[in-house]
Amino acid sequence: MKIAILLYDRFTALDGIGPYEVLSRLPDANLSFVAKTQGPVESDTGFLKIVAEPLSSLTDPDIIVVPGGPGSEAAAADPVILGWLRRAHESSRWTTSVCTGSEVLAAAGLLAGLEATTHWAFPDRLEKHGVRPIGRRVVFQGKVVTAAGVSSGIDMALALTAREVSDEFAQALQLGIEYDPQPPFDVGSPEKAPPALVELVRGTMRAADGAS
Amino acid sequence: MKIAILLYDRFTALDGIGPYEVLSRLPDANLSFVAKTQGPVESDTGFLKIVAEPLSSLTDPDIIVVPGGPGSEAAAADPVILGWLRRAHESSRWTTSVCTGSEVLAAAGLLAGLEATTHWAFPDRLEKHGVRPIGRRVVFQGKVVTAAGVSSGIDMALALTAREVSDEFAQALQLGIEYDPQPPFDVGSPEKAPPALVELVRGTMRAADGAS
Repeated sequence: MKIAILLYDRFTALDGIGPYEVLSRLPDANLSFVAKTQGPVESDTGFLKIVAEPLSSLTDPDIIVVPGGPGSEAAAADPVILGWLRRAHESSRWTTSVCTGSEVLAAAGLLAGLEATTHWAFPDRLEKHGVRPIGRRVVFQGKVVTAAGVSSGIDMALALTAREVSDEFAQALQLGIEYDPQPPFDVGSPEKAPPALVELVRGTMRAADGAS
Repeated sequence: MKIAILLYDRFTALDGIGPYEVLSRLPDANLSFVAKTQGPVESDTGFLKIVAEPLSSLTDPDIIVVPGGPGSEAAAADPVILGWLRRAHESSRWTTSVCTGSEVLAAAGLLAGLEATTHWAFPDRLEKHGVRPIGRRVVFQGKVVTAAGVSSGIDMALALTAREVSDEFAQALQLGIEYDPQPPFDVGSPEKAPPALVELVRGTMRAADGAS
């Protein structure tokens, strides 16, 4: 099972590492972090560098994961990345995204006619590609799976594992990573958070992202 | 706010990246991944390399995070790592661990007389250092904070943020990473999972880890 996690400058790390922690433990998994250029790729905070292999090293992954982050807009405008993604999607078993990674799938034309999701603060990133985001945490559409913001990739990867292998195998992985979440607050989605907090976070994130 | 996340060969990535995703967004955060040797450090799966700075580059972090993983036993026996950790702990505001990272804290003598936790399948890693693990997901003991297996570091980091900054700031970060978890199953802890699954996962993980 060949798995490719796409990296690009200013990706959000947990978007990729959540799915990595689950999918790297699939039977016969062979997982690669791939990027346009071989070598360290810097995350959105500037504090983390993950070493990537070149896109050319893995052109036929069984599972594709595209994380989001402030850099997703540039990735979605990069013909080399889009070309790799379209080609990889032709033979993939699963093509997935987390957070604004869905913008890259949309730009590659892979979400046409499909329901999809993204980070709650950036619906316009999908809309500008003619895709209307829906407010679910994980959206399965055939072999295309999109997940909501950042931490949702863990839920997505476990749900994908259940479909790809079995419920019991996914449960074993969930127990192995002791995924019995106990968030200290119940404010993890815009529907649950106070409106003032939602506006504060939306404004802060969009400013940091260079969006209006 | 200087933050050090300790890396060592065969660490578990999500143990470190969960807290990273939260703590890197603290006010004035300056976060470093540090390791005994500068350069790429390979995770437990062999599929991921994170670039680290040398331990000597950050000897007085305000927050220390020690992730777990199959390599924690070797890290806990490494005098260079233990020496760095003891010295850093002298002036830290928070000294934390995720998963079997608590074994490294224990080996450094930092858990003496304290309650602590670790991954549910490896209680012996603490017990051999005279520390009896307790079955809570996040354990605060003054400035020492231990978290349970792998994914618990996200909960730990948000709880720490609430204490270090404010509830509102922690809530903003939780909403920013859309941490409204929806695990596909309710089997994320040994208390919730069927006994046969617990024994299966315990055996598989301990065998992979080289433990009996």
